[in-house]
Amino acid sequence: MNGADALICTLVANEVTACFANPGTSEMQFVAALDREPAMRPVLCLFEGVATGAADGYGRMADKPACTLLHLGPGYGNGVANLHNARRAFTPIVNIIGDHATYHRQFDAPLASDIESLARPNSLWVKSADSPHEVSALAAEAVAASLTPPCGSASLILPADAAWLETASEVVVAPRPMRRPPGSDAVEAAARAIQAASRPVVLIGGQACRAEGLAQAARLSAAGVSIYADTFVGRMARGAGVFSPRRMPYFGEMALSELEGVDLMVFAGTTQPVAFFAYPDRPSVLVPEGCATQSLADRAEDAIAALAALADALGAPASGPAQPLQRPDSGPIGPLSAFSAGQAIARHLPEGAILCDDSVTSGGGVAVPAMTAAPHEVLALTGGAIGAGLPLAVGAAVAAPDRKVVSLNGDGAAMYTLQALWTAAREQLDVTAIVFANHAYRILGIELSRTGAGEAGPAASKLLDLSDPRIDWVAVASGLGVPAVRCETAEAFDAAFARAMAERGPMFIEAAI
Amino acid sequence: MNGADALICTLVANEVTACFANPGTSEMQFVAALDREPAMRPVLCLFEGVATGAADGYGRMADKPACTLLHLGPGYGNGVANLHNARRAFTPIVNIIGDHATYHRQFDAPLASDIESLARPNSLWVKSADSPHEVSALAAEAVAASLTPPCGSASLILPADAAWLETASEVVVAPRPMRRPPGSDAVEAAARAIQAASRPVVLIGGQACRAEGLAQAARLSAAGVSIYADTFVGRMARGAGVFSPRRMPYFGEMALSELEGVDLMVFAGTTQPVAFFAYPDRPSVLVPEGCATQSLADRAEDAIAALAALADALGAPASGPAQPLQRPDSGPIGPLSAFSAGQAIARHLPEGAILCDDSVTSGGGVAVPAMTAAPHEVLALTGGAIGAGLPLAVGAAVAAPDRKVVSLNGDGAAMYTLQALWTAAREQLDVTAIVFANHAYRILGIELSRTGAGEAGPAASKLLDLSDPRIDWVAVASGLGVPAVRCETAEAFDAAFARAMAERGPMFIEAAI
Repeated sequence: MNGADALICTLVANEVTACFANPGTSEMQFVAALDREPAMRPVLCLFEGVATGAADGYGRMADKPACTLLHLGPGYGNGVANLHNARRAFTPIVNIIGDHATYHRQFDAPLASDIESLARPNSLWVKSADSPHEVSALAAEAVAASLTPPCGSASLILPADAAWLETASEVVVAPRPMRRPPGSDAVEAAARAIQAASRPVVLIGGQACRAEGLAQAARLSAAGVSIYADTFVGRMARGAGVFSPRRMPYFGEMALSELEGVDLMVFAGTTQPVAFFAYPDRPSVLVPEGCATQSLADRAEDAIAALAALADALGAPASGPAQPLQRPDSGPIGPLSAFSAGQAIARHLPEGAILCDDSVTSGGGVAVPAMTAAPHEVLALTGGAIGAGLPLAVGAAVAAPDRKVVSLNGDGAAMYTLQALWTAAREQLDVTAIVFANHAYRILGIELSRTGAGEAGPAASKLLDLSDPRIDWVAVASGLGVPAVRCETAEAFDAAFARAMAERGPMFIEAAI
Repeated sequence: MNGADALICTLVANEVTACFANPGTSEMQFVAALDREPAMRPVLCLFEGVATGAADGYGRMADKPACTLLHLGPGYGNGVANLHNARRAFTPIVNIIGDHATYHRQFDAPLASDIESLARPNSLWVKSADSPHEVSALAAEAVAASLTPPCGSASLILPADAAWLETASEVVVAPRPMRRPPGSDAVEAAARAIQAASRPVVLIGGQACRAEGLAQAARLSAAGVSIYADTFVGRMARGAGVFSPRRMPYFGEMALSELEGVDLMVFAGTTQPVAFFAYPDRPSVLVPEGCATQSLADRAEDAIAALAALADALGAPASGPAQPLQRPDSGPIGPLSAFSAGQAIARHLPEGAILCDDSVTSGGGVAVPAMTAAPHEVLALTGGAIGAGLPLAVGAAVAAPDRKVVSLNGDGAAMYTLQALWTAAREQLDVTAIVFANHAYRILGIELSRTGAGEAGPAASKLLDLSDPRIDWVAVASGLGVPAVRCETAEAFDAAFARAMAERGPMFIEAAI
């Protein structure tokens, strides 16, 4: 076998079985080798930002990495923004970045660039397999690196000659790294501090926001501890039967006003909260003055076990509160808004659905009614790089083919990676993509005044506005192969969303809000 | 004034007057300041790869930089691929990359990343303006760096507080760096070597492929020297009245077979030719064995003056051959192909048109008939990162509003940065965008066999195929606001292209080949 075969066999042996790909000439050996290892599922993406965002969605749902297949530095570059989001979601991903043959690198051919420098900021691990004989060992190392808690991207550079040359090397299987168990000192210290505090808060994030983590947090809540969750979490359970913690508000001053009087913050699966952006004369760290802080479990530790141990130490009951199932009785009526769309979504969302949320200013409308919808999971925009919502949905649908995937997007965000719709159509993924079309970067209108930049004049306004021309989302989505409908009333949206939930396959809804 | 004002005033004072932007919260001060300096033209792009590709097109045509406005590391990341192409075109660009406030950086907020590491591989110069008082000096330095021959990207990181804090610093104007004059030793040595050689070739690239450079190369041709041009050139004159050198073939073995017997290669405005990719058992360097090489002028030197001096030294006539004007008499008929489309383009292309070429396997069909069309210029895909054709056209049209811009794209390439169509519509740019829809990554079908990877099986074939579903380009382009038409015959294409050339404003043609 050649190096490309060694790579694919090793990936499959290490349970990496999905490949989100946009290959070029230097990756042709890998592409050809796919026909010799049918256990690897190739998924073509027409832009690398779709491939990396899909790998993020896949990794969040599968708890194991997919691989991406990217064409040298520029191909990797196109994937950077969604790898940034994946880094902030702590998603395991293995990037395979094709490169020129080792002996060709010195000649600075047109596609040559410093791939390592590009890959470093968003990778836990970057290495180049410069010989076919080291491909297998390095691929196994890459998988293990991506799964090393708290998980992230590993980037393996594969020169063309390392792919085409023959090797007799063995396929290497790496042991899966495990999370560190919680430290008993940290648990005891947190229990003591909580008992001594007058208004303690436990802030949870990451793994602690999975259903099992929320169940343990609910026990703490039942014992009188306030529970907050991070604003943006890679994968979070929500809906009926699930404990619903308060969320750290996005705007720092709102967070601090809510936390006023809190004298202890304990962190589980996360670290101290900081403002998304800095603003003149506003604090960066969202911990009230004089409030003590303590880590129960960092992101690499088993935060769920730590919460359970803490609940035990505090003598908390065996279970805590959970949301009741309480769907809106009747469909929303009148003009469509993010809130009425949210009511419709809450009414029809099936159990086990996966919501990929890149809906920016429209997101709040969905979150409240969804709390008491059927139980589901939410994949949030963790790194602030818009353009994740559609790719995440592609990856989540590949990882969880039996679950309905709903993608919520602002129109500005959806424009970033709209090529994902084509992949949803090609693979006939069970994805309902919603674009909230307000024809503006609405969030920036809010942020402009918050940064003290004053009122927007005509030049500034034009940079925040998407209304000229108005994008015809139905035309765009249909053109990319996804059946599409535009809804201008709450009734129409409710009917369209109900239909999308009842059928399988890709569907697009333009929500004209 | 604040740091953002200082930046924009300095850019304008240094003749940077176009800004291709996709701002976020950290760039709001810059956005607000645009209303206070109307000499800077902001152009909203709905994806950063469009912004950087447009800045590339602008810089190639204006011979001065535009600036981009990008949102932290992920915003820059989205622009990497087209900045890679710009690096290979030696285009002056000033990237303004917003960042968190300096004091906020330490907290690793969600959008934080290592911007310098990301920016380094495609930048000649990267600095961060950490105080409002140094913004002006650094901005002038950035402009000068971008214009330092052979030119390239300069990346100025602008923390939010450096933008919002007040400063009384003076606006700095930097002198424009000039190309080094040719060395007289190099000219004399080249003349002697050419006179001694039996089959000398002069290979030209970069600046030497402008009309003035080609005129000097034509003199050498008249004196019996074979002239070749680089395969992909940032900006090259073509058509009637212009000397038409041979091109270095894309495939290395074709290049070497053409150059067989050549005993001297002299480089002007370029360096030794290398294969675009390496292939098993094929050479990387495209210089025949035993052939001597010599540099007449490197990319930072004045290659046009060097060619003129060389022509003088060889006693060449004052002018050399030029293409006659010879448009196809009648319109092409029958099924549409890249070649018949090329004939239609050659018939109707107006004088001074700018062709932005990202048409991959369809490009060859246009090049031959266009040789004798009205004089025009071609901006090629210099770095091999597909997705440049539409953004280049946006930038070229902003830089040269009185010239017709035609964008030629493969369908795979156009999918990368289709958001550019929206900007063409918003700015009502005089751009005719053509997509050659063969519903495949056709080039990869060719490359697969060349890399020795064998025949494509079903899995491999699926990664090279775009036909399922077929993209409806007319729906997509119309949805983004550009009037669009699909042409399935040569007659229809000829008529549509003639109409597009006769009218002003954005137009889209799907060429079904």
